[in-house]
Amino acid sequence: MNAKTPFTPARRAERMNPSIIREILKVTEKPGIVSLAGGLPSADTFPVQAMREACTKVLRDAPREALQYAASEGFAPLREWVAAHLNEHQRMNVTAVQVLIPTGSQQGLDLAAKVLIDNDARVLVETPTYLGALQAFAPYEPTIVALASDHEGPLPDALAAAAGGARFAYLLPNFQNPTGHVYSEARRTAIVVAAQEQTLPLLEDNPYGDLWFDAPPPPSLASRWPEGVLYLGSFSKVLAPGLRLGYIVAPPALYPKLLQAKQAADLHTPIFNQRIVHEVIRNGFLDTHVPAIRARYKLHRDAMQTSLVKHLSGIAQWVTPVGGMFFWLELPAHIDAVALLPKAVEAGMAFVPGAAFYASAPRRNTLRLSFVTSPPQQIEAGIAALARVLKAAA
Amino acid sequence: MNAKTPFTPARRAERMNPSIIREILKVTEKPGIVSLAGGLPSADTFPVQAMREACTKVLRDAPREALQYAASEGFAPLREWVAAHLNEHQRMNVTAVQVLIPTGSQQGLDLAAKVLIDNDARVLVETPTYLGALQAFAPYEPTIVALASDHEGPLPDALAAAAGGARFAYLLPNFQNPTGHVYSEARRTAIVVAAQEQTLPLLEDNPYGDLWFDAPPPPSLASRWPEGVLYLGSFSKVLAPGLRLGYIVAPPALYPKLLQAKQAADLHTPIFNQRIVHEVIRNGFLDTHVPAIRARYKLHRDAMQTSLVKHLSGIAQWVTPVGGMFFWLELPAHIDAVALLPKAVEAGMAFVPGAAFYASAPRRNTLRLSFVTSPPQQIEAGIAALARVLKAAA
Repeated sequence: MNAKTPFTPARRAERMNPSIIREILKVTEKPGIVSLAGGLPSADTFPVQAMREACTKVLRDAPREALQYAASEGFAPLREWVAAHLNEHQRMNVTAVQVLIPTGSQQGLDLAAKVLIDNDARVLVETPTYLGALQAFAPYEPTIVALASDHEGPLPDALAAAAGGARFAYLLPNFQNPTGHVYSEARRTAIVVAAQEQTLPLLEDNPYGDLWFDAPPPPSLASRWPEGVLYLGSFSKVLAPGLRLGYIVAPPALYPKLLQAKQAADLHTPIFNQRIVHEVIRNGFLDTHVPAIRARYKLHRDAMQTSLVKHLSGIAQWVTPVGGMFFWLELPAHIDAVALLPKAVEAGMAFVPGAAFYASAPRRNTLRLSFVTSPPQQIEAGIAALARVLKAAA
Repeated sequence: MNAKTPFTPARRAERMNPSIIREILKVTEKPGIVSLAGGLPSADTFPVQAMREACTKVLRDAPREALQYAASEGFAPLREWVAAHLNEHQRMNVTAVQVLIPTGSQQGLDLAAKVLIDNDARVLVETPTYLGALQAFAPYEPTIVALASDHEGPLPDALAAAAGGARFAYLLPNFQNPTGHVYSEARRTAIVVAAQEQTLPLLEDNPYGDLWFDAPPPPSLASRWPEGVLYLGSFSKVLAPGLRLGYIVAPPALYPKLLQAKQAADLHTPIFNQRIVHEVIRNGFLDTHVPAIRARYKLHRDAMQTSLVKHLSGIAQWVTPVGGMFFWLELPAHIDAVALLPKAVEAGMAFVPGAAFYASAPRRNTLRLSFVTSPPQQIEAGIAALARVLKAAA
C-alpha cells in the first residue's frame, strides 16, 4: 500500500493475488474473439422460463419470508432436497442436518479453509488443481503440497507419503477443472484406503460430477468414508452460476464450526435465491434439465475433439474428457502458453495458460480450453486459430 | 471435535462461537410471543411489487447476463448508483471504482478483517458494539479493545489513548446496534481529529443511517477523512435483507486487497440480486420508499416510547432513539437480563440481553428492544409483559 494510507495490511494479505484467469478474461472476452478461456457454463442452458415462474410464485406465496433475514444453515426444504439428491445419485447416506448452503461452492472452500487451516499447516492438492481453491486457501497461510498426479488423479502413494500432519487433501474426482480428468473406481478406493490409514481428512469438490456424457462417474469419496470427507457441490453448472448457490455436506463433528464461520462471514446465503432454486427443482426439473445439458455439452465436446484431431494432431497431446467442461492440452516442451496467449488473441481466440493451476513447479507448456462457452460452430474456428499460432511458434 | 473425526480444527476455530442472538431467536420467535428481540426490518416495508416488476424485467431483458458469472467488483451500474447516492447523502466524494458490492455488509466486515487483522493485533470497538462485527473479527484472532463510550459514541480521549499500534477502530456513528445512539457533529469532529493525529484508520459501519426520524444525522466520518476511513453500507434496512446486498467504499490504496479477498471468498455477489436491486432503485424509488419507512418506524418508536414511559418509568433508563431500530434499556444494577429472559418469554415477550454486545466486562443489567419487527399495537403488550417480570424480579 502506498505511503498516503494509514491502513496496514495483515500479513495474510501478501499471500492474496488477483485471479490470473479473471485478469485474462477482461482482456480476451471482447467481441470477435472465440473465447475458449472462461469456465462459463453455456447461457443457452439457463432455465430462464422456470426462473420466471419460480420468481412469480415465491413473490406471490412467500414474499415476506423470501425477503427477510433467514437461517445461517440455509433454507430447510433445499437442504432436504440436497440430502435426498446425494443419497440417490452419489450413493451417500446423509441427512439435511449435515447440509449447509453457502454462497456458491467457492464459499465452501473459504469456510473449510477458515475452520481447518492454521498458518504453515500443510494442505495437499492435485497437480494441477483448481485455481480458485488455491486462492481460497491462501489467506489462511497454509503450506501447499502438490501431489504427483496422473490422468486418474493423485497417486495414492504420493498422498500417503505426504499425509503426516497435513490438515486435508483437496480432491476433485470428477472432470477436474482444469484437466477434465476423472478418478477411476480403483483410484477412488486406493485414495480412500490411503487417507484412512493415514487419518488424512479429504475435502471433496464436485461441481462437475453431474455433467457426464456416456456413463456416470463412480460414486463419491464421501460415500466411502462419511466421517472423513467434507463434500462440496454446486448449482452453478446445472442451473446458473449468477445465483451463487452451492452446498456443503459436513460430518456432524465438523458442522457446528462451519456454521459459525458462515454466520460470521455473511449471516446467511440469500434466502430469495434459495427459495427460487428450490421452487425450480422441487418437482424433478433437473431430471430432464441435466440430461439436456449433458447432451448439449457432449456435442460441444465432440466438436472440439474433432477440431483438435483435425488441427492439432502431432502438435498437442490431450486425454479426451468424458464429462465436465474442459480439455487440457500439453504443448511441445519449448512452448510457453503464457507467451502464446497474446498471439492467440491477435489470431482471434483465447485460452487459459495452464501455469496458474500449479501450486508449485508450473508446467508452462499446458493450456486449458473450455468447450461449453462458445457454440460448436465457433469452436473449430478457435482451434484452427490456435493451430496457426502454435505452428508459427514451433 | 469428538474422538471419531479425523478433522483437526484450526486454532482460530476456538475463537468462533454460535451467535447468542441467533440461538435466542430460535427459542423466542414462537407464535404468541411478542418478539422485540430480533433486529428484523418490518416485512411490511419490503417492496414486493417493485421486486416483481424488476424480476420480470431483468429476466426478460438480460437473462443470460443475470444468471452468468460476473465481476467480483459488483454490477457496474449499481456501483455507480452507490457512489452517486453517497456523494448526495453522506457528503462524500467517491467514484464507482472505490465501490465493491459484498454479499451483505456483514461480508464487508469479514473482508475488512481478513485484509487488516493479524492475530493478536489490536482492534478498537465501541462499548457496547455490534455483536456481528465481534463475530466477523474473531476468526482473525485480534485483541479487541473496548473504548469507554457514552450516548454520543466512544470518547475521543479513550480512542487516542488506545490508538497506538491498533489496526483500526470499528465505529457505528448512526443509530448503533444495539444502543440506538448517534454521534453528534462535535463528537464526529473530535473522533476524526484524534484518529488522524494517531494515524488510526477507521472502519465506519452505517446500516441504519437512512432511518432517521426528524433530521438526518451529521455527515459520515468517511466524508471527513476519505483516505483513512473504510465505509460500509447496506440495502438490508432500506429494501430487504433476504437479498444480501451491501456496499464497501474503500480508499483506493486498500481496494485491490479487498477485491482479492472477495474473489477468494465467493467469486462475486449474486449478479441476479444486484441487477434486480438496481432495477428497483435506478429511477428514484428510494426517494419515496425510504421516507415511508422512516414515517412507519417513527410510529413504532413512538409506540414503544409511550409504552416504556407508561410501564417502566423509574424502573429502567433509556435514551430515546432518534432513528434506527432499537431501544437500549439499563435495568436496576442487581438485575441480570440473561436470567430475566426465560421469565419474559413465559410472560409472552422476548428481548435480547445486552451482555453479548460487550467485547469485555459485560453490563448484565442491559437489554435491547427492537421496535420495528412487531406492529405498534403489539408493542405495548410486550412492554407491559416486560414490566411485570421486571417488577417481580425487583
